[in-house]
Amino acid sequence: MDASDPLARLRQGFLLAEGEVYLDGNSLGVASAAALDALRIGAREEWSQGLIRSWNTAGWFDLPVELGDAIGRLVGAAQGQVVVSDTTSINIYKALHAAIGLRPGRKVIVAEAGSFPTDLYIAEGVISTLPGVTMRLEGRDADRIEDLLDDDVAAVLVNHVNYKTGALRDMAELTRAIHGVGALAVWDLCHSAGALPITLDEAKADFAVGCTYKYLNGGPGSPAFIYVASRHLAEAQQPLSGWWGHARPFAFETGYQGDPGIRRFQCGTQPVLSLRALKGALSVWDDVDMGQLRAKSIALTELFIQLVEEKCTGHGLVLESPRDPARRGSQVAFGHEHAYEIVQALIERGVIGDFRAPHTLRFGFTPLYLSHADVARAVQVLADVLESGLWREPRFAVRGAVT
Amino acid sequence: MDASDPLARLRQGFLLAEGEVYLDGNSLGVASAAALDALRIGAREEWSQGLIRSWNTAGWFDLPVELGDAIGRLVGAAQGQVVVSDTTSINIYKALHAAIGLRPGRKVIVAEAGSFPTDLYIAEGVISTLPGVTMRLEGRDADRIEDLLDDDVAAVLVNHVNYKTGALRDMAELTRAIHGVGALAVWDLCHSAGALPITLDEAKADFAVGCTYKYLNGGPGSPAFIYVASRHLAEAQQPLSGWWGHARPFAFETGYQGDPGIRRFQCGTQPVLSLRALKGALSVWDDVDMGQLRAKSIALTELFIQLVEEKCTGHGLVLESPRDPARRGSQVAFGHEHAYEIVQALIERGVIGDFRAPHTLRFGFTPLYLSHADVARAVQVLADVLESGLWREPRFAVRGAVT
Repeated sequence: MDASDPLARLRQGFLLAEGEVYLDGNSLGVASAAALDALRIGAREEWSQGLIRSWNTAGWFDLPVELGDAIGRLVGAAQGQVVVSDTTSINIYKALHAAIGLRPGRKVIVAEAGSFPTDLYIAEGVISTLPGVTMRLEGRDADRIEDLLDDDVAAVLVNHVNYKTGALRDMAELTRAIHGVGALAVWDLCHSAGALPITLDEAKADFAVGCTYKYLNGGPGSPAFIYVASRHLAEAQQPLSGWWGHARPFAFETGYQGDPGIRRFQCGTQPVLSLRALKGALSVWDDVDMGQLRAKSIALTELFIQLVEEKCTGHGLVLESPRDPARRGSQVAFGHEHAYEIVQALIERGVIGDFRAPHTLRFGFTPLYLSHADVARAVQVLADVLESGLWREPRFAVRGAVT
Repeated sequence: MDASDPLARLRQGFLLAEGEVYLDGNSLGVASAAALDALRIGAREEWSQGLIRSWNTAGWFDLPVELGDAIGRLVGAAQGQVVVSDTTSINIYKALHAAIGLRPGRKVIVAEAGSFPTDLYIAEGVISTLPGVTMRLEGRDADRIEDLLDDDVAAVLVNHVNYKTGALRDMAELTRAIHGVGALAVWDLCHSAGALPITLDEAKADFAVGCTYKYLNGGPGSPAFIYVASRHLAEAQQPLSGWWGHARPFAFETGYQGDPGIRRFQCGTQPVLSLRALKGALSVWDDVDMGQLRAKSIALTELFIQLVEEKCTGHGLVLESPRDPARRGSQVAFGHEHAYEIVQALIERGVIGDFRAPHTLRFGFTPLYLSHADVARAVQVLADVLESGLWREPRFAVRGAVT
């Protein structure tokens, strides 16, 4: 399978550790030589030598929109609708405020109880500043988002791929249902951007946010992105109205007047060194076919599930991800009562996945740098850890601050 | 003067270009070897090799509070009151929301018409989410902040050092006046942190924000900081309630519960590579005496003004900074009808200052890496540019996107 993999050539561009299988690219992507080179140039040449001039000469000031357009190509957004800025959490805050502002009189945000928690925490923060606005949750107030939709709903904040189970939503279909009641769709792409083809414009998404340090490999905490559909750009307002969102940031005017385009969704000065690494990381995508990416992603996750089913039976692992690859992102989750200990034992044996409370083993499959042989090896190690009972050794039960 | 400068030894730690005098450290500080080394370790070892493990093993998760405490030592804040996170603009948003929340029923924010504009833009953004709250501006509604204070005022947002003129406020005195009407003081330290001694705790400041890429030399766009006085930590709430501010961020709870301490003023995942450079940059401060720093800063700015008065008479330069060094930060501004062209000509001749619209030449003096000889040389070049009329050549009138 590796011999016929059209993406296999990309692996050599990444700094993979010898003897390790890294299945945590859905948490923090691997460094590419391109990212590290770009970072070095940004630090050693642009900052150290160019200093303040680099805002112009190295194009620092336009990096957020340049990188936004580069990401736009990966998520199905035409130019001028995506900007890289701040964090996913902050971009959710901007998007929810903007969406609610576009739907005056409506007082409900719909979200998912099973969402990555920061989405909910930020929705709470938005609500704290807007008296009368409330939240309805899928998984608490009804089983399906569709059953929570009515004329009171201003915005639906929904994860494209669930961070834990990897369940993949049908973006076009759900957006259609959301629009059917006159609400706006805010898509969180953290676990799908760079993992599979996304068609924001075609699906008529209204807003989207996502991070760049998972499948896009931008480096730890690299800035996030926000998408605002061009049809909303004239009217959508967000309250984090800092100078980078101003129509004329260097005129130093006393009053705020937002840029007419996507720049209005910027706020303050961005961490340029992190942006430079991200620019390098995104260059790797220049000749990646997203169809091939998806095909390989499915091949990797299918192989993983099949091999686990073959080699790890009888040890209590329960698949928590959809079995149908069409409904699954590029990750696979298994439940196990001792998930934490098993993950720690796997890490010691060179298979890096992660644990999600309370009982989930989570494995991410990045098509850019993983091979089918990696998958086979990971399952063999998992089978060994289970068979031998290695994970029962007390050291694997010690809890760290971050898991 | 250089021979007896107790800070002269620090210069060798910075990557200064030969033949250049850099008077723009108040816009973007110079790279230190320590910052670049830390960045390289963060990228090549912690990210590339440690990958996801570095959140624990390299201490990434605690960097914002570790660096916050390091900055706290430079701004007179006891531990646990400062965190590095997001941007200055976003931290102003947090601080203003928190301050208004602590003063229910009060409906006025006081700020300065001459403020760095993003402060005003963000105050507008805060107001946009809080019906009934309005703004009063020094320089528009009255001449002095003191004359705008009454029982309706919730918060006063004020720059410690004016970004343009370098005028320095008396923090203790103004904070006392603000507290006199029961309002809270939010200090913007962008142009004073790392430029002079600051005594936030002693002055009884309530909140403060500041950037780290000017006098603290953290690198382009390095993340900003926010200070919340410990007496407010139990009650102060801010609406950017992302998961990094949660009391238990890795428990993945559905509801938000803020951390009881300064971590509550974090929001989302921070750009670690930029934080690593900042950590290196801050290590330079370990043995800097802030009294010596201030003495040198005054010596440099006094020398600059004196030499300009001696050597540049008759060319229309007008001092826009306070003449009394006790009322001046570490920068000097001169007004001139052709400030833009003169600044461009200076840059071509290796003296890097900057222009601020409409008519200001602005020069920053970073005591860590500038010498008195640099100052003398800069004035000589300025005198030459004025005397020769070099600045009148048409190429210097071309306007760039960023100045």
